[in-house]
Amino acid sequence: MPPSIVTLTTDFGTTDHFAGTMKGVILSIAPATTRIVDITHDVEPFDVLDGGFTIAQAYSYFPKKTIHVVVVDPGVGSTRRPLLVEAAGQYFIAPDNGVLSLILARAKPKVRHITNERYFLKPLSRTFHGRDVFSPVAAHLATGVLPARFGPLITDYLRLGFDQPARAGKRERTGCVLKVDRFGNIITNFHIADHPQLNTRSFEVKIGQERIARLALTFTDCGPNELFAIVGSSGYLEIAMNQSSAAERLGCGPGAPVHLSLD
Amino acid sequence: MPPSIVTLTTDFGTTDHFAGTMKGVILSIAPATTRIVDITHDVEPFDVLDGGFTIAQAYSYFPKKTIHVVVVDPGVGSTRRPLLVEAAGQYFIAPDNGVLSLILARAKPKVRHITNERYFLKPLSRTFHGRDVFSPVAAHLATGVLPARFGPLITDYLRLGFDQPARAGKRERTGCVLKVDRFGNIITNFHIADHPQLNTRSFEVKIGQERIARLALTFTDCGPNELFAIVGSSGYLEIAMNQSSAAERLGCGPGAPVHLSLD
Amino acid sequence: MPPSIVTLTTDFGTTDHFAGTMKGVILSIAPATTRIVDITHDVEPFDVLDGGFTIAQAYSYFPKKTIHVVVVDPGVGSTRRPLLVEAAGQYFIAPDNGVLSLILARAKPKVRHITNERYFLKPLSRTFHGRDVFSPVAAHLATGVLPARFGPLITDYLRLGFDQPARAGKRERTGCVLKVDRFGNIITNFHIADHPQLNTRSFEVKIGQERIARLALTFTDCGPNELFAIVGSSGYLEIAMNQSSAAERLGCGPGAPVHLSLD
Repeated sequence: MPPSIVTLTTDFGTTDHFAGTMKGVILSIAPATTRIVDITHDVEPFDVLDGGFTIAQAYSYFPKKTIHVVVVDPGVGSTRRPLLVEAAGQYFIAPDNGVLSLILARAKPKVRHITNERYFLKPLSRTFHGRDVFSPVAAHLATGVLPARFGPLITDYLRLGFDQPARAGKRERTGCVLKVDRFGNIITNFHIADHPQLNTRSFEVKIGQERIARLALTFTDCGPNELFAIVGSSGYLEIAMNQSSAAERLGCGPGAPVHLSLD
Repeated sequence: MPPSIVTLTTDFGTTDHFAGTMKGVILSIAPATTRIVDITHDVEPFDVLDGGFTIAQAYSYFPKKTIHVVVVDPGVGSTRRPLLVEAAGQYFIAPDNGVLSLILARAKPKVRHITNERYFLKPLSRTFHGRDVFSPVAAHLATGVLPARFGPLITDYLRLGFDQPARAGKRERTGCVLKVDRFGNIITNFHIADHPQLNTRSFEVKIGQERIARLALTFTDCGPNELFAIVGSSGYLEIAMNQSSAAERLGCGPGAPVHLSLD
Repeated sequence: MPPSIVTLTTDFGTTDHFAGTMKGVILSIAPATTRIVDITHDVEPFDVLDGGFTIAQAYSYFPKKTIHVVVVDPGVGSTRRPLLVEAAGQYFIAPDNGVLSLILARAKPKVRHITNERYFLKPLSRTFHGRDVFSPVAAHLATGVLPARFGPLITDYLRLGFDQPARAGKRERTGCVLKVDRFGNIITNFHIADHPQLNTRSFEVKIGQERIARLALTFTDCGPNELFAIVGSSGYLEIAMNQSSAAERLGCGPGAPVHLSLD
């Protein structure tokens, strides 16, 4: 049975026709049973890290064989390659610009350079490959075309290391802010899987002008105006406040440095 | 036949993976025929009134047996209970924090405390029950699991009275603003069903610094810059202007007092 | 076989229940196989040009017989007529206010005045025809009701000429900005189909305080802070910058004059 779900993660926003047009292309090619699911079209424009973080948090909750289309593509029309990746039992279609880095970090992804123009829209524009390349490739994959038909396997794809904090001493780590969520919670790149002691031993986070040592279990554990650390739903250490914006209070956003002192 | 539509109303916004992840969870469990429909993800963060108003205006237009998932959940992870409500021939899944108040006001809702962890995602996070509790419960309900399997009936659920104006004299009523819509129209909590004389007799509304006595039938009845009252499409009395924002002109938003003098 | 896709293009935004309610109406009437696709709900409020541009860029990528519902409707409840248009093998349902102008410019559209109230919701509101007129008509069309059942053919529908630049000399044209997209690219109303020489001969665009003579093929052809012209993915001449906003730099938006000097 061919894949039957196509998800969309883009920086196209919702004030233009871009996302709607991609859906039209997919529905014109894919079987009538294919479902299209918006993950988000509000990735920060051109922000490969933001898009890469978003798809990495969502994909594993989808059924096997889901096709994830990720279009954050500042290099559209240049020589950057379109990729078809098989990883974790799912498919990912995206430009080769690092936006799939967190997916590619998984054991043994199969990565193909999409070269077979037979599966592109004609005429092929130079500025909207979301419409002309990524959507039709996803739709043809949904019809049951085998991955190998789209292009050759490659190993020299781009993988960015934005999710890895650095060692700065025996008990010191230097990381950064990955994302500020809708509620102003600051998501750092310290993951509980790499730092299991965060749940059991004391620690201190330095971010902006503040030091935070309190670990909360829920957002309502602390009073108003109190900054706390919390292990978020994706496993990353977050800095948060109860019903207000930690990011606004600290004045920091994606990329800001975060220092972690372990006990 | 099991229910086949799941709607989503949340304050998760569209810049994160949250809504997309919920859809993944639902599609991983529910039958292939289940449809997911976004009502909105742009409820004001933490605003139970705003979310409660939104779902109350939309639900009755959906087919019987539709499952409405409403996640505005500032108390996530605390002791607030997850609810499964049967009312008006439909299902509602939401936290017990008043967000379903307008639904619960309907005659004889059946309200269950969702306790059966068999239908939750494991591991259960403390900060994203939209993903780990509400979505999988909705999906299992869509597969045909009977409501009674999710937990016991309760009667001590929270119901807020935000939709009820107060009597302030024989012909005087004190209400408030429920919502400002996208166009700047001010939706008050005076409903035509409770005040049928609004359509046939003169009245005066006091709001902010203004008194408004004119009742329009359409938005184009009045000239530019003229404030008027109009019975909106959901039956609430609204204060509006033709193609401009009454809320901006009056400088008032949700919760602002509105005084109604009947003739 | 009846049509099976209904698209939605509105200015209802996503902070209200409006779009969700429309979907409920459609799903209550249409066959279980009908899919609803959001093109956008973020058309500028009341902006017939913006909505008209959006649907015109998207529709042709959808399968034949798709039903496009376009609701940008400042005159809702007044005497403006609801229309059902057959053009290009597809259906369009919208108010008669010019929002379908670019579609109606196609050879021999069949345009009907929707008069048959049998296909409206009852009671019919005066302020939300998206819910009470346009959605149920689309859904009934999706069930296989023939277009002629909805109302008589008309020829005196409104068609606005916003897409046509004017001749201002043998080699001079005066046009305007149609749209600023999410990335700040300025889309003019000079279309490559009408000005094929743009691809082969030099030209100069005057817009705001700038003169632009450079034609790029991709967004990455030029350095940062350099304004350039590019033929966009819909065929319109655009003024753009690499990863920054040309519209912000030039301080101009929809309707601003654009002067084109051909070689």
